[in-house]
Formats: sequence, structure tokens, C-alpha cells
Amino acid sequence: MIGGGPGSFIGSVHRMAARLDDQYELVCGAFSPDETRAREMGRQTFLDPARVHLDWHEMLRGEADRGDRPDVIAVVTPNHLHHEQAKACLEAGFHVICDKPMTTTWADADDLARTVVRSGRLFALTHNYSAYPQIRLARAMIEAGELGALRLVEIEYAQEWAATAVETAGNRRAEWKTDPARAGAGGALGDIGTHAYQLACFVTGQTADSLLADLTSFVPGRRLDDNVHLLLRYDSGLRGMVWASQVAIGSKNGLRFRLIGNKGSLAWKQEQPNQLSFTKLGEPPRRLERQAASIAAAASRLPAGHPEGFIEAFGRLYADFAEQIRARLEQRPAKPEALLVPTVEDGCEGVRFVLGAVKSSRQGGVWLARGDWTG
Amino acid sequence: MIGGGPGSFIGSVHRMAARLDDQYELVCGAFSPDETRAREMGRQTFLDPARVHLDWHEMLRGEADRGDRPDVIAVVTPNHLHHEQAKACLEAGFHVICDKPMTTTWADADDLARTVVRSGRLFALTHNYSAYPQIRLARAMIEAGELGALRLVEIEYAQEWAATAVETAGNRRAEWKTDPARAGAGGALGDIGTHAYQLACFVTGQTADSLLADLTSFVPGRRLDDNVHLLLRYDSGLRGMVWASQVAIGSKNGLRFRLIGNKGSLAWKQEQPNQLSFTKLGEPPRRLERQAASIAAAASRLPAGHPEGFIEAFGRLYADFAEQIRARLEQRPAKPEALLVPTVEDGCEGVRFVLGAVKSSRQGGVWLARGDWTG
Amino acid sequence: MIGGGPGSFIGSVHRMAARLDDQYELVCGAFSPDETRAREMGRQTFLDPARVHLDWHEMLRGEADRGDRPDVIAVVTPNHLHHEQAKACLEAGFHVICDKPMTTTWADADDLARTVVRSGRLFALTHNYSAYPQIRLARAMIEAGELGALRLVEIEYAQEWAATAVETAGNRRAEWKTDPARAGAGGALGDIGTHAYQLACFVTGQTADSLLADLTSFVPGRRLDDNVHLLLRYDSGLRGMVWASQVAIGSKNGLRFRLIGNKGSLAWKQEQPNQLSFTKLGEPPRRLERQAASIAAAASRLPAGHPEGFIEAFGRLYADFAEQIRARLEQRPAKPEALLVPTVEDGCEGVRFVLGAVKSSRQGGVWLARGDWTG
Amino acid sequence: MIGGGPGSFIGSVHRMAARLDDQYELVCGAFSPDETRAREMGRQTFLDPARVHLDWHEMLRGEADRGDRPDVIAVVTPNHLHHEQAKACLEAGFHVICDKPMTTTWADADDLARTVVRSGRLFALTHNYSAYPQIRLARAMIEAGELGALRLVEIEYAQEWAATAVETAGNRRAEWKTDPARAGAGGALGDIGTHAYQLACFVTGQTADSLLADLTSFVPGRRLDDNVHLLLRYDSGLRGMVWASQVAIGSKNGLRFRLIGNKGSLAWKQEQPNQLSFTKLGEPPRRLERQAASIAAAASRLPAGHPEGFIEAFGRLYADFAEQIRARLEQRPAKPEALLVPTVEDGCEGVRFVLGAVKSSRQGGVWLARGDWTG
Repeated sequence: MIGGGPGSFIGSVHRMAARLDDQYELVCGAFSPDETRAREMGRQTFLDPARVHLDWHEMLRGEADRGDRPDVIAVVTPNHLHHEQAKACLEAGFHVICDKPMTTTWADADDLARTVVRSGRLFALTHNYSAYPQIRLARAMIEAGELGALRLVEIEYAQEWAATAVETAGNRRAEWKTDPARAGAGGALGDIGTHAYQLACFVTGQTADSLLADLTSFVPGRRLDDNVHLLLRYDSGLRGMVWASQVAIGSKNGLRFRLIGNKGSLAWKQEQPNQLSFTKLGEPPRRLERQAASIAAAASRLPAGHPEGFIEAFGRLYADFAEQIRARLEQRPAKPEALLVPTVEDGCEGVRFVLGAVKSSRQGGVWLARGDWTG
Repeated sequence: MIGGGPGSFIGSVHRMAARLDDQYELVCGAFSPDETRAREMGRQTFLDPARVHLDWHEMLRGEADRGDRPDVIAVVTPNHLHHEQAKACLEAGFHVICDKPMTTTWADADDLARTVVRSGRLFALTHNYSAYPQIRLARAMIEAGELGALRLVEIEYAQEWAATAVETAGNRRAEWKTDPARAGAGGALGDIGTHAYQLACFVTGQTADSLLADLTSFVPGRRLDDNVHLLLRYDSGLRGMVWASQVAIGSKNGLRFRLIGNKGSLAWKQEQPNQLSFTKLGEPPRRLERQAASIAAAASRLPAGHPEGFIEAFGRLYADFAEQIRARLEQRPAKPEALLVPTVEDGCEGVRFVLGAVKSSRQGGVWLARGDWTG
Repeated sequence: MIGGGPGSFIGSVHRMAARLDDQYELVCGAFSPDETRAREMGRQTFLDPARVHLDWHEMLRGEADRGDRPDVIAVVTPNHLHHEQAKACLEAGFHVICDKPMTTTWADADDLARTVVRSGRLFALTHNYSAYPQIRLARAMIEAGELGALRLVEIEYAQEWAATAVETAGNRRAEWKTDPARAGAGGALGDIGTHAYQLACFVTGQTADSLLADLTSFVPGRRLDDNVHLLLRYDSGLRGMVWASQVAIGSKNGLRFRLIGNKGSLAWKQEQPNQLSFTKLGEPPRRLERQAASIAAAASRLPAGHPEGFIEAFGRLYADFAEQIRARLEQRPAKPEALLVPTVEDGCEGVRFVLGAVKSSRQGGVWLARGDWTG
Repeated sequence: MIGGGPGSFIGSVHRMAARLDDQYELVCGAFSPDETRAREMGRQTFLDPARVHLDWHEMLRGEADRGDRPDVIAVVTPNHLHHEQAKACLEAGFHVICDKPMTTTWADADDLARTVVRSGRLFALTHNYSAYPQIRLARAMIEAGELGALRLVEIEYAQEWAATAVETAGNRRAEWKTDPARAGAGGALGDIGTHAYQLACFVTGQTADSLLADLTSFVPGRRLDDNVHLLLRYDSGLRGMVWASQVAIGSKNGLRFRLIGNKGSLAWKQEQPNQLSFTKLGEPPRRLERQAASIAAAASRLPAGHPEGFIEAFGRLYADFAEQIRARLEQRPAKPEALLVPTVEDGCEGVRFVLGAVKSSRQGGVWLARGDWTG
């Protein structure tokens, strides 16, 4: 693991997710350049002190030649470091699990995609929300035509944590997430807008063909957007709306969508992830619990009524990526569901989306065709 | 009453709303030009057959000179008739209660507004959703600064009834609501988008300064929009998003909003109108039941827990308009809450909004400043 | 109307309910023995002052001989007066609409039932909750076997208004509702427990064969129960549990039930009365909106999504009773759904239930067979 | 681990819970007397084949003398085996984590409690529902007097999985859970009723002083109860009602409660465990998200809005028990919150409750004082 020092939310999530299904063992880490912090995390995770590194380059060098070298490295640092670190890991022969958004520039994204291909290594991007069982069920239902032709995707992601100037109040995550140098061109857009858009892509199986964005920074002094209003058009005729906000007082982590076709609709809320609401044209809404269908059962660990949450979904990505790695080792095809883990291509799409939205908004809120997003 | 023949949904709503608080008596009607239908409705409402008219012009002439002439006439016909009928009523000296949207053109809207002034008569527009007690509470809370400076209004109005080509399947309401000649330039936009926008105006106390609309007709052959995606900007800094749809399978009459300021937020759903969710910055969300505060209690008829619904809110407009009329008769100021009934100016704003959105969408989905909406 | 003076909650509900469908006209009233209050209510309801009476005996004498005498009299006084007043109305030849619980003693209940038969007049008891459209739908579904053989009825009615000693704080309703002389032997039991039990009877089509009650008065000094825990056994094998409480802080008017058979289940909440949750064995839960089925549509006035509430359900009883009266006048059978109005027999069952529960509880909380409830 | 072979739900839950916080390593197991099944589970958990045992006695003998012997053994077998196995583990010097209900007889429960004392070993009972953060918050709020004097505990636990004769349809769990020889005297009572009662005890800090139970077996041929109706009285004046059912079509794992005092109330649902509803007398209900207070934050791993579920709560017991063991090793007091893990005394209370309820029901449904439950 690179990053994920003491107090890091996402680092601890990655570690719990990795442990849940007993497919990973943490063997080394470059948790922090700060020695005290790095050592502390080494102790907490019962690591061999010799494998707790202060410098991630050194870790790659040191671990590459060991007999018990790790198969895979998780990159959980701020966005601007992903490209360099992930690339180096791949080139050193490790598979990579990388946090999102993948990179802060299009050049980096494109380069990383090429590096994955060139290296022949596996790459996973932790768009964890797409790993909830009910989300996989939604995708399968749409693929099977249960909604008919899609007409609308209405998606929102509302949080409240940045409603005030937290970045100047000693909140480390807020500091880098609102700093263009570390977070990239998008604030709420990159942090949660990309999750919303990826979820729409994952479930619908479609990418947008043009977008129009109206980005705002409501909190005085904030350097990146904290609210996103965005419209989408798809060549298939599908239309979409995205609202992503980090000033939405009253919402903790309110990611939700409605997907509407000409034969039915689906609705889902991340804060109650175990249910999916399904309405067929002319019939009453049904509440599909986890395990109501085989696809969702496959992604579940517990029977319906025993709530699974965020860590379980995150762990699903880890478990599926383990299956990809194991299949590679065993020279067999991976199970199909293990291929649902977001890839470097999904990472490129996310970077493209951020850049397109920023460009549209800077031009006053105009429609931009896909080809113009990264120009 | 003009319009509201047998089977008319809105006609029967107007009559129930009028009766609820015992402030109105129905004394005459031009319910339908079809004699059988007109007579049937006369019987159902126990009217003197002499006061059941086939022609509304004739009704105005006949009733104007009676000693027991009505004080007020309700106009509940399709949109394209509102202007002529309401104008004639006003000019004949009657107060008018008119259904929304007020007119189908800007010229008509403007003319009607002038007629109201010239006639000195009272005019009410039945944007009924703004008469729910919790909506009045929301408005009062915002006015009192409980949300601080407003940042976001996210409003949606989702219905499913037009998800298929109902207008060619014998549904009379669907026929005129999808006919540009009778409904005006907006489909879902005029029918429900105006409700959504009026509700936003009512609660925030602000009108938008520019808008951008993406209108779609999903159902093949449909002549007006059945889906609205719309962005709003306000000079105050407030930003908004509107989704109005009549192809939203799974939604019956799903009007809802979130209003977010820098100190708190409110959320409300029309299908559960007796509750208002209120979150202050840094505090847990509270569920405000009807009568939780005096303003909402004033607009209620029952204690909390005894659900009030659509007819009760509609009846609130009738009761408040009765108070306006009574105050006029008694030469005293009306109670302040009775002045919350939407006016001809609100009707003009709605027409302006429809025209602006249609124009923006026809130009490909561009931002239009308020001054350009009706040009 | 007898009772229902200024400030009376239930009196104003009866009047709104009666007006809603335009089948009743209020023509006379003995609203209060207090002249000021009686006159005030006469003015508010636009009555002929000659027909506003201070003494209800006098009203019956005065109205009985008029050509325009009323068809029906509503009795909305405290419980201990129902028997004498309703009996006198029936004997004077009026149909009667009576509030619940019907009487305070079994002798009175039995006598009233005999009086109804002897007088040949119609009698309606306003157990209004059984008139919600979704409740009628539930009853029809159970009758049609959609739940299979019933196993469980779990019903609760939770209110908070009596959590403190409101009866000594100037609350008139609380005063008589906690006074054994006026309310009868049951406090929460009579006031809301009877609603819960009647609803169970109405929906299941069954009456209980034995019960066991544990009544409590939590508020110091209170003279009647404010909390009811009660178990039911039915000869059919059905078992039930009832919780009725007026000290349930956090609940306004929380009447709800789950009904479970061997093939399916239903769940309903009075505070969201427009939906009924239905689960078939092995299938996902469905949310049935009002008008999802013809029986519920027949009892509705508005399409689904346009919430109907308490007054609408109350008005349903009035409308159905009007149909009974009209059918009698027209010498034809009433429409079947109009016969769903609770009768004097339902009133007797409610009184029997109260007395049985009080007796069981006084004996320490023991099972009492139906035959012993009124002994 | 003893028990928890392939396909065992609770065995896999124990293993995930143990891994989550990285405080346990599984080193040996007697998963099943069936060699194929035992070996399969050994492989899945990457155990040294030498430490995968077919006979649990043998495992205790074999492991007891190893230098790397385990600190603690988890007993996850059917109820009738708990006593013998847990006792043997304790006597062999291991700490024990045991599934609930603890034993099937009072003699066994009492003997186990004495064994714990005698052995000086630590003992944890996995009443996992009491480890949800919002449950710990509820307990702390009640302890701090935020509800005032408690009046009512209304608790229900509704499941549907046994609505048909699943025990004769090849469901292994159903087979032993409905078999008195393996499950003990209680069916739904022992399986989920004990969870409900333990939760009530945990949150209120009180045990009941008398109970009355009405147990039913609805499914033809079933040998144990599948539905529990139960009343509780406490010497403090608190009254309670318990409904536990495994024939409740429409409910997956519907454990929920309302707790009402004279100053406020709390409500919670296991299927949405991240929220706790709190109402103070005279104020609107508040929704307390996880981490709204320090006590709940201490028991959480993620910020509010990132749902935690069943495994996380189960893992909380494991983590807290690890802290108890570690504190013992380090000869220091354990952190206070680590002492919230249910103990052998809680296990005794659960057995007492089952026996009392069965006895009450067999006597026709009578009140039994605490002293008579186990007689």
C-alpha cells in the first residue's frame, strides 16, 4: 500500500475491504513520508518493520526482488500522485489497485492506460459504489431489457461536509480536496461527480455524447467547485441530469439515482443500499431486497435483511480483483462477474468527464461534444 | 364555474375545495357546451336548471344582472380558453379563480394582467401546491432567515401517466394537454413544470434571472415535450435545477424539493405533504409535522397525525380568496395569510417561464436572460 | 348536529366530511348548552338562528314536525351522552350518525341496538379509519383469499398527546377523555383501542374469541388507562397483538397494522394512508397506491399521487350513509360498498371489547373468553 | 473454531467479523465431523491441514500444548452442543466466544456460568445486535436520562423464512432450529426472541420481573413455536411487549424497537441500523446518524452516510473481546466500551427467558414471576 497513514479514511477502508474475504494479506507499506506516522501504521497492521517504508520508490525497489513480494499494490494517495505511483508499480511488475479519480490531467490518464497495456499488469480503479449487489442487479436488469429503451438517468450525490470553509479549519482531507494542485481541476466534480457519472455509465452501459455543466463555488475563498449542475445527452436518445454537491446541508453521503426506460424504472439510494425499487409500466413498485436475484446474490455475503454496507461493496472489488489475479496465475479465464471491476478505461472516462465539465462551465455553461472534452 | 363537466378531474377538485370550508355556494355553471353533459353536472350539483348554461357568454350575461349573482367565477377549462373567459368575467364585474397555466401566450398574459388592474376585480390562480401548510411554513422559515443565504433549489416533478401514447388512446385530458393549440407551447413544461417553478418562487421569494432548458418528447408522435431538464441562475447567487417529467414510470405525482442555504436546509415531498424535513448546519435532521409552528397551524384544519391532502391544500386557496373577497366587501384589509394566494402576476411569471424554456431549448439548450424569455 | 361547539375537533371534522361530497346540508344544531358558544357556531355555519338550539331535547321536538326536517342527526358529544341522545333521535324518527365509542355501558349498547331495530331507522358509527380506500382494498383482498388463511394481526395505535397530565392543564378534550364518568371504563382503550380493534375486525372479517389485557396509567393521578397491551385469540387460529398508547412520545396518530396469512401479508400506516404494502409468499413487497384496484378507486376521489387524508375517509362514511338513506327513500337496495359503514352491531362489539379488556386487566391480566367480557 | 463448516451462515459471519479489525487470526478448526467438509473449509481458510480437526475434543487436546496455541475458541455449533463444547474449551484454558442462545437447559446455563468463574477465562456471547453503534448510543442516552423514567419497551423481530415447512424441504438450518433436541425448548423464541429480549435488556439496563407468553406453531407439523406474543412487566414500572415471528411474510430480518420514557423516546430498525430516531417531549423527531455522538462514533469505522451493517456490528463484539483479552495479557483494565460484550450472565438471562416463556405459554398464557421461570 502506498498512502493510507494514520487517520486516513480511505486507507483504512482499503485495508478492511481487502481483509473481508481473506484473499489478501498486507505485507508492506509506504504509508507516509513522516517516519512517526509510517511506523505507527506499521505497528497497527502488524507489519514486519523492515517492510514499512518512508519512500515509495524505495519500497518498489526493495519489494520487487523478494521471493515473497506482493502481487498487487494499492495506491491510496491524493489524486495528483496516482499517475506517477501507479505507473511505477506497473512498470515494476505489480498489479495495481488505484483510488479515484485516476489522474488529474488527460495526458496522465492516457499515459497510464498505455502503461497498463504495455506492462501486461492488471489495474483496478475503486469506484466502489458500482460494486453494491443491488447495483450489479440493476445493471443486469437493464442489460436484459427489463426497462426497455432507456430514456432518463437522474442522478444525484449530495454531501454536506464542505458547507463551510473546512479547508481552512485544519481538515487535512478538505485541504487537498480543494487544492487544484493536488485534487485536479474538479472539486466536488472530481471527488463525487466522477462517482455519480461512473455509476450512470456502469448501470446503463452507455457513455454520454455531450454535456453541459454549471459549476459553482459557494463557500467564499474556495478554489474548486463545491456544487455541480450538469446535463447529459447520449446518442441513444437517453438524457441525464447530475447534481453533485458538497454544500448540501442535511445530506451525509446521498448518492442516488432514478433510471427510466419505456418499460420500467429503477431507483436506488446509497444510504440504503440493500434495496432496489423496480417498477414495471402499469404495475406497482416492488422493493427488491439483496439476494432477490442470482446476480445480486453472487455479490452478497449475507441473506437479505442482514444489512451489508460500504465496506462490503468495497471488499467486492477487492475480491473480484483477487479472482482476476488468481485466474491469471492459474492461466484460466476469470469468472465473468470478476470483470465488473472498474478498469483503467473507466478511469480515463472519469478524467475526460471532469475536464469536459470544467471546460463547459468555464465557457459559461455550454454544450460540449465528447470529442471536445479533453481538448 | 366555466368548464368542469362530468369526468373532469380538476372541476371536481375545485368544487370539493370550495365546499370544504363552507365559504362558497355553487349557483350557476357553464360546465360543457354539450347539453347532456351540462345537464348531468347540473343535476349532480343540485343547481337550479335555469342557471345551467351551455354557453359561457350567455351565463355571464344572464347572471350579471341577477340580485343573487355570484361573487366569483371559477375558470377550469383548457389553457387556451383561460384568457378570453377570465377577461370576460372580470369585465362583467366578477372576481375570478383561474386554473393554471394562466394563458398560452405572453400577449394574453399581459393583457389579462392589465384587465385585472383595470377591472378592479380580484384574481386567483390555483397553484395549489403552494397552499400546503408545510409549504407556507417553509416560506416563513426562509423569510425569517432560518436557512441563511440560499444557495440551491433542487426541484423535481415526476409523473408517469404519459409514458405511452395515451393521447391517441382515448384519454381526453391527454389529448388537449399534448395539443399545442390548446395547451400552449409547453407540454410537461406547462402542465407541471410551471407548478415546480411557482413553488420554487413561492418558497424562496425569488424569481430566476436566467434559465437553460433541454426539452424532450420521448413518446413517438407526441407534439409537446414530455420531459424537462432545466437549470436556473438567480442574481442573488442562488442556483437551481428543475426536472419535470410525465414519462417517469414509478412516480405518480412526485413533486419534491430540497432548499439549501448556508445555515440549513429544507426538504419536502408532495406525496407526503404533512411533513417537512429541516436540518440546521451541524445538527441532526428534524421532522416537522403539520402544526409544528403557528404559520402551518393557521393553514391546517386538523392536528398533526391526521393527514391532510390535496383537496385540503386546494381548499386553502379557496378559503383565503374568500377572505380577500369578504374583506373587500367589509372594506377592511384582508388577513395577511389570505394574500398568499397566487395572483395574476404569478400567472405572468409562469407564462414567461414556459416561453423562456421553450425558446432556450429550441436554440439547442442555451442560457437565456430573463429579458429574452418572452421576446 | 348535537354537540360540536366552537373549538370541537370532531364536530368540525363531521361538518367538513358531510360537505365534501355535497350530499348533506346542515340545517339545525344543538352545538352547546352555552348560549354564546351555540350562537357562535350557528353564525359560523350560516344557520337560521331559529334552528340553533340550546337544548337538544327541544331541538328534536322542534325539528320533528317541520316540513324541511333533517333526515339525519349527527351525535358528536362525549361518550356518556351518546346513548340517551342517539336513542331519542331514533325514536323521533331520525337516522343517526354517532361518534365512537358508542356507549359507556353494555346495557346502553344493547338497548341502543334494540332501539335501532325497533325504530327502523338507519344508524352509522364513525369508525372513520375503516373508510380509507386502502383499508377497503385490504378487506377485499383478504376476502378474496389473497393472504390465504390468516395467522397474525399486529396492530398498534400510538399517540403522544397524553404523555403529561394534560387533563389538569386546561385541555377540555383531555378532561372528559380521562374522566370515567364521561368517557366510560376505558381511557386510551376506549378512545383509540376501539379504533384499532374495529379496524382489525373490519379488515379480517373476524371478531376475537378471547383476550388478555394489561392496562396501565403511567401519568400520576390519571384516572383511566393511558396504555394498552392486549393479546387476542380467534377460533379460526388467528392470533393478534394490540398496542394502544397515549403516552407514546414521538407518535402523533400512529395507527398501523401488519396482517399476515399463509400466502401473503399486508401492512398499512394511517399517517401515510394512500399506500398499502402487499407481499406475496416468495415475491418482493409491492407498494399499492390508491386506485391500484377498483375497490380502492371506488372509495377515492382523486388519482393516485394526489394525497387524500383523514377528512376524505371520514367523508366516505358520510357519503356512503347518504347512499343508504337515499336508497331507502328510493326504495331500492343501496350500493354494496355503502354497506361498509360501521353499524350499531360494530358499536356493540367495541363496547364489549372495552369491558372485556378492563375486566381482564383488573383480574391481573388473564385470558377472558368472549362470553365473559360483558358479565 | 468449532462448527462453521461449508455453507454455514453463522460460521462465515464469525470469520468475517474476526478479520475485519485485524485482531484475530484463524489458526485451527473443527469445522465438521465430515472429513470432506472439514478439509474443504480448511482449504478455504488457508489453514495448516494439521490443524484442521474432525473431532473437537481432539482439537482441544492437540492445540492446548502448542506454543502457538490460540487464545480464544469460537463455538458456532447448534445450541445443544454449546454447553459441552464451551465448557471443555474453558477448562482447557481457552477464552470462548459462543453463539446464542447459550444452552438449551437451565442446568447447563448455570453450570457454564460457574465454569467461567472457576476457569478464570473470558467468555463472550454473540448477541450481535447489541453491538450496532446506534444501539450503544441508545443505551448511553437512556443511562444519561435523556428519556427520563422509562415507561414502555415495544420490540419486535419479524422474519418470513419459516412461513412454510422449510424444515422438511432440505434446509439444514431449519432442520435443527425446529428440532427440540438440538434447538432447545424455544423455536422462534430461542432463535430470535432471545435477541429481542437481550436487546431490550441491553438498552434499558433492566431485566423483566414477570412475563406472559402466547407461543404458536402455525406451520402444520412444526415441533417448536414459530410465533411469539409476549408481555413484560418490570419492577421499575416499565412495561413491554415482544413480538417475534418466523412466519411474518414480508419481513426479512425485521428487528426493531420503540423505547418510551416520560421525557422522550427512541426508535430503531435493524434493517436501517445507521439511524436512530430520537424525540424529546414537545419537540420534533430528530434522525441521529451514526457518529452523531461520541459513543456511537467509538463503535463506528466509517463516517455517517457510509452504511455499516451486520458484519461490522458482529465485528465490534470481536474487536471488543480482543481488547478484553489484550488487557488481560497486558495486566491493565480493558477500555470501558469493551465491557459491553454480552457475558455468560446475559446468556443465563436468555435461557431463563426462554424457559419462562415456554412455561407461561404451556400453562395457557399466564403471568409468571421471574423466580418461577426456570423451576
